[in-house]
Amino acid sequence: MSLFQFLNFNRRNTAPVARERLQVLLAHERAAVGHSDLVGVLREEILAVIAKHVSVDSDRVQVKMEKGEIVSTLEVDIEIPATASIRKAS
Amino acid sequence: MSLFQFLNFNRRNTAPVARERLQVLLAHERAAVGHSDLVGVLREEILAVIAKHVSVDSDRVQVKMEKGEIVSTLEVDIEIPATASIRKAS
Repeated sequence: MSLFQFLNFNRRNTAPVARERLQVLLAHERAAVGHSDLVGVLREEILAVIAKHVSVDSDRVQVKMEKGEIVSTLEVDIEIPATASIRKAS
Repeated sequence: MSLFQFLNFNRRNTAPVARERLQVLLAHERAAVGHSDLVGVLREEILAVIAKHVSVDSDRVQVKMEKGEIVSTLEVDIEIPATASIRKAS
């Protein structure tokens, strides 16, 4: 399975898309006794970094967080209007 | 295939691990004529957010970036010493 199938990007669709898409996947595999909430700590700041550079419509943002005993994950899926501009780092 | 097989986390290994692992996957699917370098723009700032919270040894950090015509990806794989502490957001 390729990375993009996993991220279910529809590559066969060659028609110009009106929306762009940004997906972020974060996975933290802890030592048996380790940092408990690194994914939770990073979540807000990574969303803030993205919002700093692209105008994001909050109801086009899906965030899914799963905390397992050893592995925690964060999945963020953002639809970006193709017209949205990128703000370079100031 | 589960998310973790894809991120090849070794879940069968129940022995305590000396190192923790943080993986970040970023994928940007552009509109036909869209933002060219969102992944490149976000890369440094996401690494900076991570380094703000976890002491990271630069030779334990692997960064892979691929720029395709429509889809660009960023993969970051960080080994964190289990003894490293998490710095909460100040």
